[in-house]
Amino acid sequence: MGNNKPSIPKGTRDFGPDEMAKRNYIFDTIKEVYALYGFQQIETPAMETLRTLMGKYGEEGDRLLFKVLNSGDYFKGITDEELQERNTLYLQTKLCEKGLRYDLTVPFARYVVMHREELQMPFKRYQIQPVWRADRPQKGRYREFYQCDADIVGSDSLLNEVELMQIVDTVFQKFGVNVQIKINNRKILTGIAEVIGESEKIIDITVAIDKLDKIGIDNVNEELRNAGIAEDAIARLQPIIAFQGSNNEKLDTIAEVLKTSETGLKGVEESRFILNTLQAVGLHNEIQLDLTLARGLNYYTGAIFEVKALDTPMGSITGGGRYDNLTGIFGMPGLSGVGISFGADRIYDVLNTLDLYPKDAVATTQLLFINFGDKETAYCMPLVAKARAAGIRTEIYPDKAKMKKQMTYANTKNIAYVALAGDNEMAEGKVTLKNMATGEQLLLTADELIETVNKQ
Amino acid sequence: MGNNKPSIPKGTRDFGPDEMAKRNYIFDTIKEVYALYGFQQIETPAMETLRTLMGKYGEEGDRLLFKVLNSGDYFKGITDEELQERNTLYLQTKLCEKGLRYDLTVPFARYVVMHREELQMPFKRYQIQPVWRADRPQKGRYREFYQCDADIVGSDSLLNEVELMQIVDTVFQKFGVNVQIKINNRKILTGIAEVIGESEKIIDITVAIDKLDKIGIDNVNEELRNAGIAEDAIARLQPIIAFQGSNNEKLDTIAEVLKTSETGLKGVEESRFILNTLQAVGLHNEIQLDLTLARGLNYYTGAIFEVKALDTPMGSITGGGRYDNLTGIFGMPGLSGVGISFGADRIYDVLNTLDLYPKDAVATTQLLFINFGDKETAYCMPLVAKARAAGIRTEIYPDKAKMKKQMTYANTKNIAYVALAGDNEMAEGKVTLKNMATGEQLLLTADELIETVNKQ
Repeated sequence: MGNNKPSIPKGTRDFGPDEMAKRNYIFDTIKEVYALYGFQQIETPAMETLRTLMGKYGEEGDRLLFKVLNSGDYFKGITDEELQERNTLYLQTKLCEKGLRYDLTVPFARYVVMHREELQMPFKRYQIQPVWRADRPQKGRYREFYQCDADIVGSDSLLNEVELMQIVDTVFQKFGVNVQIKINNRKILTGIAEVIGESEKIIDITVAIDKLDKIGIDNVNEELRNAGIAEDAIARLQPIIAFQGSNNEKLDTIAEVLKTSETGLKGVEESRFILNTLQAVGLHNEIQLDLTLARGLNYYTGAIFEVKALDTPMGSITGGGRYDNLTGIFGMPGLSGVGISFGADRIYDVLNTLDLYPKDAVATTQLLFINFGDKETAYCMPLVAKARAAGIRTEIYPDKAKMKKQMTYANTKNIAYVALAGDNEMAEGKVTLKNMATGEQLLLTADELIETVNKQ
Repeated sequence: MGNNKPSIPKGTRDFGPDEMAKRNYIFDTIKEVYALYGFQQIETPAMETLRTLMGKYGEEGDRLLFKVLNSGDYFKGITDEELQERNTLYLQTKLCEKGLRYDLTVPFARYVVMHREELQMPFKRYQIQPVWRADRPQKGRYREFYQCDADIVGSDSLLNEVELMQIVDTVFQKFGVNVQIKINNRKILTGIAEVIGESEKIIDITVAIDKLDKIGIDNVNEELRNAGIAEDAIARLQPIIAFQGSNNEKLDTIAEVLKTSETGLKGVEESRFILNTLQAVGLHNEIQLDLTLARGLNYYTGAIFEVKALDTPMGSITGGGRYDNLTGIFGMPGLSGVGISFGADRIYDVLNTLDLYPKDAVATTQLLFINFGDKETAYCMPLVAKARAAGIRTEIYPDKAKMKKQMTYANTKNIAYVALAGDNEMAEGKVTLKNMATGEQLLLTADELIETVNKQ
């Protein structure tokens, strides 16, 4: 029983009142915008069967899944020989049949397949829940973190892409964060690989050029060479990825480059539609076609997007794209989807750095009644109730503690007003209201007190 | 890869859009009231170390904890002999060093100890998060469910008990659910055991009489007998637990019965203060002193409370009490606390049964623009943006699908208005707005449309 120094698992975090208020502000803002666009919230269980999770995130992902030990006799069905072999990879699926959610996409795909009869397509869902990964913990990387996803499934329309970009634009406008939205299309990348004669190396190419921002052109080329891409193909790639210009100039140029690739031209056409439609509706933030954007993930099949904050250095804070066949792995082929994911932890850091939390988002108790003893408390309690009924977040200090202690409590909790009632106030049927910022004190009736605090 | 029929672990649930809207309404209402009373939200990780969790919930609890398999070589440090012995109880703490949160109280105690330097006492926190228990799943019992707790630590004042009862009263008033609040005091139970001469059997006595409502007096007495309580003690208990009357009558009678028990009288005095203060501030729901209420949990040391819905049969929907020494298990003794826990799943069922969800709590998209094709869509997109900017939850059907399909979508999602724009509307710079409930159609400008939908 007596472990004296409690701790939490590495890579996990407690969120205290101030952090929670800020995180709630972030999630509530995103939820409000999702709802404005007709997305509906769902939640899935923290645990999924390993059958659902394994094989969906590659070998690395399988390893990083947290697995939950079976209840009861977890050795059942394992022979003595198997135990002695200590094959941890093999035995984990015998010891465990459940694991913790690794992302929100696979559980969503599983959800869609299980509930397909009751879902009205196109289905627009959002989901804000923690996920768990047994990654090596490091600065900014956690073993438990929230994802904040919206996806539309069951519609091929590019209007979905347009609306997701509008959502991104609206959310960051509400946050007061200037962002740059980058957009590309997997079909353009496929086309580029085709026209430079390296179709089979599409994955190597996208993985390499995706790093252009981070490692520079020379290292990208080195990586392409190491992947076995021919020198002339690398040479033909240079002007494409180096091309600067407006979105329309880029589209015109790349359309010319890709004129022999049907897929590539399809990607150009899709990008043109998305960008033109967005221009017509008007965005507050800049959207830029970036032909090197690939987001590493090879399951994207159409549009790809990524968002970066402009006023503080920080990696991608939002990303997404279109993927075909989300639910095929669960036996329901042919369902296309497109989605975005806001990076809550990074957005939290950006808003902290830029000091962008609205004052009332992190507001706590507004009014504290000082406790002078039983008699005074009995006098104050109905006033406390009245203030709360008027919507004022109100406390009465529960103990008859020293004045200094009670004032420290008010200061530490950033409480704007303190109410005091001693013999004089009680005799007059009033209270003294102290403004903690200015020090000003007023003798007020209950109604006047409520009015004053609510005006703040 | 190809598992064709995906499923979720038994005892867990998916929450679809409608359930989520209702659950959010419940959580948001409770959160709002908690904040009104100065409580602040915290969150703790889903996983805690087994050192934190084990030994806190009894042997049964240890067994019901979900344990998370260590990453990497989880057999490390286990000898071949130990493996062959297959002692699952012993080996689980070698295979696993983390487990899933079993309740919110132990993590809260751990949190308070870890963060004691930065916390301002008294600390009023609330926490709404899922917990996991490997219970046998059955109707109404889940392996993953949300708890919804508020606790004050670092204050012995009975005003905290008073405020928690006010919170309960306010929350259920907001829900529109009539409840009965039952209150008792552990010190009264201790006093009763003393005066009937069975102090050492206090746990058996409380466990037995706590079941009075469920199993009746004869079975309670049988259980007392089986626990070795003397016949004359049982006889002396009868009038006490059978006593009917007002709270004040009960307090006067039990004070007389307990006049030789210092602890018992302390319990009477505490209950009297709580009930009198609540009477002075005024509750909307009835509060009743119930001398048989014990809530099974032996860690309560003062007030005990429980809430039952009056208009539908359902077990306890909220409960709590005062416990001393919450943090003693983690090496920080002497910290008293008092808390309540709302049973979200049961409240959900009660609100469903009594059909008490407000219409706008489960509201979805308000306005759907029909998609007639690219030209019409281009015309509609700025109107869609305008409606959203006015705060209207708006969708445009993404695909140019058959009218019937789009109308079915509107109906299934309970969308109140549908907007249509064909050649005529475009020529006039207007849209046709159809009220889905009445069938009424109006030809409107964008501003008129916004006004009409917002008026709803």
